[in-house]
Amino acid sequence: MEKIKIGVFGFGKTGKVIASEFLNDNLFTLVWVVRKSHDDHHKYASRLLGYEFDAGEIFTGEDIGEDFFLERPVDALIDFSDSTGIYLYKRAAEAGITIISAISKYEQEELDLLKSFAQCTTVLYSPNITLGINVLMVAAQILQKIAPHADIEIVEEHFKGKKEVSGTAQKIANSLGLNVEEHLNSIRVGGIVGRHEIIFGMPNQTIRLSHESISRAAFGQGAIFAIKFLIGKPPGMYTMETIIAEMFRQNIPVY
Amino acid sequence: MEKIKIGVFGFGKTGKVIASEFLNDNLFTLVWVVRKSHDDHHKYASRLLGYEFDAGEIFTGEDIGEDFFLERPVDALIDFSDSTGIYLYKRAAEAGITIISAISKYEQEELDLLKSFAQCTTVLYSPNITLGINVLMVAAQILQKIAPHADIEIVEEHFKGKKEVSGTAQKIANSLGLNVEEHLNSIRVGGIVGRHEIIFGMPNQTIRLSHESISRAAFGQGAIFAIKFLIGKPPGMYTMETIIAEMFRQNIPVY
Amino acid sequence: MEKIKIGVFGFGKTGKVIASEFLNDNLFTLVWVVRKSHDDHHKYASRLLGYEFDAGEIFTGEDIGEDFFLERPVDALIDFSDSTGIYLYKRAAEAGITIISAISKYEQEELDLLKSFAQCTTVLYSPNITLGINVLMVAAQILQKIAPHADIEIVEEHFKGKKEVSGTAQKIANSLGLNVEEHLNSIRVGGIVGRHEIIFGMPNQTIRLSHESISRAAFGQGAIFAIKFLIGKPPGMYTMETIIAEMFRQNIPVY
Amino acid sequence: MEKIKIGVFGFGKTGKVIASEFLNDNLFTLVWVVRKSHDDHHKYASRLLGYEFDAGEIFTGEDIGEDFFLERPVDALIDFSDSTGIYLYKRAAEAGITIISAISKYEQEELDLLKSFAQCTTVLYSPNITLGINVLMVAAQILQKIAPHADIEIVEEHFKGKKEVSGTAQKIANSLGLNVEEHLNSIRVGGIVGRHEIIFGMPNQTIRLSHESISRAAFGQGAIFAIKFLIGKPPGMYTMETIIAEMFRQNIPVY
Repeated sequence: MEKIKIGVFGFGKTGKVIASEFLNDNLFTLVWVVRKSHDDHHKYASRLLGYEFDAGEIFTGEDIGEDFFLERPVDALIDFSDSTGIYLYKRAAEAGITIISAISKYEQEELDLLKSFAQCTTVLYSPNITLGINVLMVAAQILQKIAPHADIEIVEEHFKGKKEVSGTAQKIANSLGLNVEEHLNSIRVGGIVGRHEIIFGMPNQTIRLSHESISRAAFGQGAIFAIKFLIGKPPGMYTMETIIAEMFRQNIPVY
Repeated sequence: MEKIKIGVFGFGKTGKVIASEFLNDNLFTLVWVVRKSHDDHHKYASRLLGYEFDAGEIFTGEDIGEDFFLERPVDALIDFSDSTGIYLYKRAAEAGITIISAISKYEQEELDLLKSFAQCTTVLYSPNITLGINVLMVAAQILQKIAPHADIEIVEEHFKGKKEVSGTAQKIANSLGLNVEEHLNSIRVGGIVGRHEIIFGMPNQTIRLSHESISRAAFGQGAIFAIKFLIGKPPGMYTMETIIAEMFRQNIPVY
Repeated sequence: MEKIKIGVFGFGKTGKVIASEFLNDNLFTLVWVVRKSHDDHHKYASRLLGYEFDAGEIFTGEDIGEDFFLERPVDALIDFSDSTGIYLYKRAAEAGITIISAISKYEQEELDLLKSFAQCTTVLYSPNITLGINVLMVAAQILQKIAPHADIEIVEEHFKGKKEVSGTAQKIANSLGLNVEEHLNSIRVGGIVGRHEIIFGMPNQTIRLSHESISRAAFGQGAIFAIKFLIGKPPGMYTMETIIAEMFRQNIPVY
Repeated sequence: MEKIKIGVFGFGKTGKVIASEFLNDNLFTLVWVVRKSHDDHHKYASRLLGYEFDAGEIFTGEDIGEDFFLERPVDALIDFSDSTGIYLYKRAAEAGITIISAISKYEQEELDLLKSFAQCTTVLYSPNITLGINVLMVAAQILQKIAPHADIEIVEEHFKGKKEVSGTAQKIANSLGLNVEEHLNSIRVGGIVGRHEIIFGMPNQTIRLSHESISRAAFGQGAIFAIKFLIGKPPGMYTMETIIAEMFRQNIPVY
């Protein structure tokens, strides 16, 4: 079987881990990496990450000319850079390359651009692309409908240095119609990678759905999961949450 | 609106709590209680449970003659007695009364009888009728399909005196195709009412679904939930799990 | 061995559970109960609580004349009434009866009165008298000294109806020098009896100390624990926390 | 202030992390590393770990001649190699260098050798040298004495690939006199770094002490903690557990 060809935008802390996940998985070939800085220009991401083969030649934004995506074709482009990365890959979308963006926050203008790409190709945008968080989000919304009288609270725990409230936790709160000020509790201690818990309290029972991150590689696994799902799907805008919701629908147990 | 008329089989520790739940809920009238012993014959369950009104006259098995269910009609019959209770309410089923059985374990013969009732009326049978446990069971089966490579372990915690392995935990294990010997961990300490946790371990993330029981009243609430669902449904055999699975289907978020 | 004679102030929800704990324990005799209301005057607490023997005759405040404590002598008096109960048992203290008060909050005047009793007898005052909470408090203070750079957060979970922040959690925060506004997180959902968790976050590891209440009987067990400890101790003011700290000292493992 | 000079035995997965912890901490100078393989001989550990300065020259066992420890003096030697490392540093002990061994398992002969070193210098041996695990162990032993009737269970969770039962959990079980077969529950799923929980169940309350590992750097921090404690202490055999027990003693709250 031919391997799925991948390009990655972003080679920071998370970008490197994402590249490694693709390098580790035989289903994929990492063709190139685009990064902001000029460091390691034309070197191979694979070598920098300790592999003994050449893969993922490193480019910078300025290298992306008219024919970049035609000369170095990929099946999917994963963006873990920043909100401006999007301005560089219009042609990729036009060429039908699947776009997966895990950027934390876009301005409206950027979001509109991303949506315009969705007319030509499959575009997935999710700030948190891990399987687990999206499973939690979908399950929580269903549970809220099943037990509408349950009181719901969200607890998120992260390392001391994380200043802002978890965007993921805010998104969960919004999806459940919960006021963030009142029902979202943030714990900041030590080196906790990330933990989200949704508590459903009923008079005689308590249900807890929790997700603990062990490493950033979960983002890479989420991207891999998404690419596999998007293969053969019609152009359009997707999110991890809609994919997971669809998978819930397909997998409800039959008795 | 006319109240829903209820009969209860069983007036032990759990039966009493179940009766109380129906006495507390304005949607229902507790018409009678059938218990094994002759204690408190013809007294009112309501009075014995500290209420200031008459409801739930207490009968014994021998009182159930040919016309018992016609003379004291109810809409639903809840059975928290034991596996032999079923032999007393064939006529109830024939009269179209909804049957809800929460008996722990039936012999095949009894199960067959229960199924025969399902030709005349709606019959629900679930050894654990709480909302939360069934939500956990359905969510876990879906999650296993979405993340087939996740390692799964079940932990159940109960009070020291509980000798056997939790039947609910065994049922969860079976529904996930897990070997009980290998993947079910039983903790027996102090006075823990009941806690079940299903752990999904992936290389970079861990998902935990947990359910903690606070009181037996959760069983009564489960019965109330089931009755509301079964109203107007066609005759047939139901379980809490199938009801919850159906509610999952109806409540998958749409974007 | 002669039984330890007990008098209880308070016969509300908690007071009844406390009386039951003493009725259940062969080491003790419940001699009397003093309650505010005139209900059940001169009846036996034991009978009202479903026991088949007479114990714990019920009195009201007005019954406590000059000789009450001489005519109905007890070894220890447990106060689960309210902050005014203290004005009724000055003579008990003078007679050398051990005083155990679990009142939530005293005015300064009342606190001074309580302290004056400590000149005649052993007096223990702890708003939360459970073994577990006090173990948590002492262990947390030690751990903070051992790992002074750890970030500490407190999470307390209680039933939805509990309006105020847990006094116990506030006390824990104070004992650790933590600002309550910043480091105390209150979860209010469903019917959770009570859960306190102290999280110590370090860069590479997290320690959690947690306490879950199952029933109010834990207060009775705390009182029993305290009485046994106080027997033979010199007059003075004690708290559960000081007793537990002393037991920590006595039980540090020797290698 | 003069820095504390450190030598490290072992440069595997854990050894590298330990070396990094010393390189990161201004209180210390990493003088050398001794590793089994001949890789990177005479290179600097600092450079291999991505630092921009020279520290921690790499030697192999054969380099350790008669004068190694005199020519390259250190204040403390940390051994994360294997059980045979001990045969190489007899002269270090004789020179009064503090020895810290975190080897998983020694044969009796090796243990005897280690003990003989303790006549000349301070020797600490603990297979698990993290602060948190030792705090848990000491706290659990005290709590067992305070609440002798509590039922105790241990749960340890680790990544799927860990075949054996956690040695740390076994040590905890032994210190509490618990049968490992009956009271130690091992969960093996996904990528969990390491979690130990000790559950104390009482009829009306449950106490849980838990420790979660985030990264191996906790071992380095444990070594740093131990070195600071051992400075100025008399020669003898120490363990992390005895140090932590001593710190418990020194830090019991006074009221």
